[in-house]
Amino acid sequence: MNTDQALALHESSIIFDGLVIAKWNRDLFEDMAKGGLTAANCTVSVWEGFKDTIDNITEFNQFFCDNSDLIMPVHTTADIAKAKEQGKTGIILGFQNANAFEDKIGYVEIFKKLGVGIVQMAYNTQNLVGTGCYERDGGLSGFGLEIVAEMNRVGIMCDLSHVGPKTSEEVILASTKPVCYSHCLPFGLKEHPRNKKDEELRFIAEHGGFIGVTMFAPFLKNGIDSTVDDYVEAIDYVVNIAGEDCVGIGTDFTQGHDQAFFDMLTHDKGYARNLTNFGTIINPEGIRTLGEFPNLTATMLKHGWSESKIKKIMGENWVRVLKDVWGE
Amino acid sequence: MNTDQALALHESSIIFDGLVIAKWNRDLFEDMAKGGLTAANCTVSVWEGFKDTIDNITEFNQFFCDNSDLIMPVHTTADIAKAKEQGKTGIILGFQNANAFEDKIGYVEIFKKLGVGIVQMAYNTQNLVGTGCYERDGGLSGFGLEIVAEMNRVGIMCDLSHVGPKTSEEVILASTKPVCYSHCLPFGLKEHPRNKKDEELRFIAEHGGFIGVTMFAPFLKNGIDSTVDDYVEAIDYVVNIAGEDCVGIGTDFTQGHDQAFFDMLTHDKGYARNLTNFGTIINPEGIRTLGEFPNLTATMLKHGWSESKIKKIMGENWVRVLKDVWGE
Repeated sequence: MNTDQALALHESSIIFDGLVIAKWNRDLFEDMAKGGLTAANCTVSVWEGFKDTIDNITEFNQFFCDNSDLIMPVHTTADIAKAKEQGKTGIILGFQNANAFEDKIGYVEIFKKLGVGIVQMAYNTQNLVGTGCYERDGGLSGFGLEIVAEMNRVGIMCDLSHVGPKTSEEVILASTKPVCYSHCLPFGLKEHPRNKKDEELRFIAEHGGFIGVTMFAPFLKNGIDSTVDDYVEAIDYVVNIAGEDCVGIGTDFTQGHDQAFFDMLTHDKGYARNLTNFGTIINPEGIRTLGEFPNLTATMLKHGWSESKIKKIMGENWVRVLKDVWGE
Repeated sequence: MNTDQALALHESSIIFDGLVIAKWNRDLFEDMAKGGLTAANCTVSVWEGFKDTIDNITEFNQFFCDNSDLIMPVHTTADIAKAKEQGKTGIILGFQNANAFEDKIGYVEIFKKLGVGIVQMAYNTQNLVGTGCYERDGGLSGFGLEIVAEMNRVGIMCDLSHVGPKTSEEVILASTKPVCYSHCLPFGLKEHPRNKKDEELRFIAEHGGFIGVTMFAPFLKNGIDSTVDDYVEAIDYVVNIAGEDCVGIGTDFTQGHDQAFFDMLTHDKGYARNLTNFGTIINPEGIRTLGEFPNLTATMLKHGWSESKIKKIMGENWVRVLKDVWGE
């Protein structure tokens, strides 16, 4: 591997992260810049309802003001190109739970207008739309079917990463626009309820959908002993099933958060019953922080990937599918 | 039938209505008095969330103030005895949907303290707890299991009238206190998704539960041509399956409401997709209004029911099961 070649490739590429749920602050945005991140889907709602999610977005709007030298809002794929051009990181606001829509179909459009581009249909457990991956999954509800149609209409991508298999399948079939697992790993490398089986990866790809691959250590084969090589191997596992045109990155960086934050994530509604235990979380060696993003490109080169494949996986594929969903 | 005997029996009995969802106003409370109603489960939440439900309760508290000569709040079965003694109608505040609990287990106790004694787990469609009877039912959710336990702990009765068969079965099995169908009719007399099959009626009875029988005309065998005789026949159908100790009245009086109200009830979340069409709603002849309640007692006598059976079905059974659930 030639370091200069890797860096040049990284700098000339669109680098897109399909899922970041970090502690938002200027340090983080600076690390995004260091990593050469062009754009990212940044979580602003997990268990929150409408009002609390609005408050989170309000907070992010202040971040946009205070850090306009580093970040900018992304509503369209043209905004992603603009971010690349200006050397900033474009921010797509995203939800990991449709809970913020509450029982109002009209809230979908409200959030779209506020910059929300990707929404996961359920987070780990049942909501009004469907069911997450940590409990028995009865499938997409009648209301959920209406929410999918509305997300299709206004242009918000349906994300299925933490969604149960039955709801996922039904969303894939119901949606008239491509849907995604924004951040998942293959069950074939590690058996875990959050990981997706080969047939699930194949099913979403065959239906025009998209797969972002996460590097969240507890779901990787080698757990917290994983390295960036294990991450590239996992991406290749998915590419071998789905092809290299509908796969991308979705790191699930949780940078800057404390244990209380993980406790909130791993309890239903943020406080109720415990759903899972991650144990210690250490990102794979070589990509422990957003700032190390260039190592991922370098590692792909080291694994013999072509430059064209790297560019697609690192960002071009995400931009293409988002244009399909957003329409612009 | 001796009219004097019927009236004397009615006046000496506890008359309990397990479900009234009328337009609340003084006229209505006067009609309750005319009907000799001792106490009723009065719906203050269907699709509403926490805040709107609190507002409905606030409104009812004003009714309690302004109509204290006619109605009084019921928190315990001793309050029901007091209502009978004072010739007033006791009001149990009830929900037809656990939606008002939103995602907060702690709201269960809040509402108990505000006078809520009976809560239906779902209304027609899926919520965070389980699924209603008008869509595919994936069963009780993990969160729902926690809600049942909390309702058991604080003493709120689980109602399953509009709940799907799978969620109903799982609530019956999960609850450590008796649960009810507060207002249902037998599928054996009319095939309808809201009506309960013989085996469902048997199952709840065998597990210590309770069945209130409704007279809602669209679900009765003879529809809007029904009479109070059809209603007594339906009650007897249920008694023949469940025995005469765990059956009571749950009329579902909607007195005073307009078409817009029924449109709200029959659309998911009060406004989304249409779930069912009732057609014209005319209560059975002889019991078209709450004021005609004495006709029900008279009709039971006419059908040859013993006074002891009538007293149980008209109210004593409800009071016994509520004491079991409420603990007082």
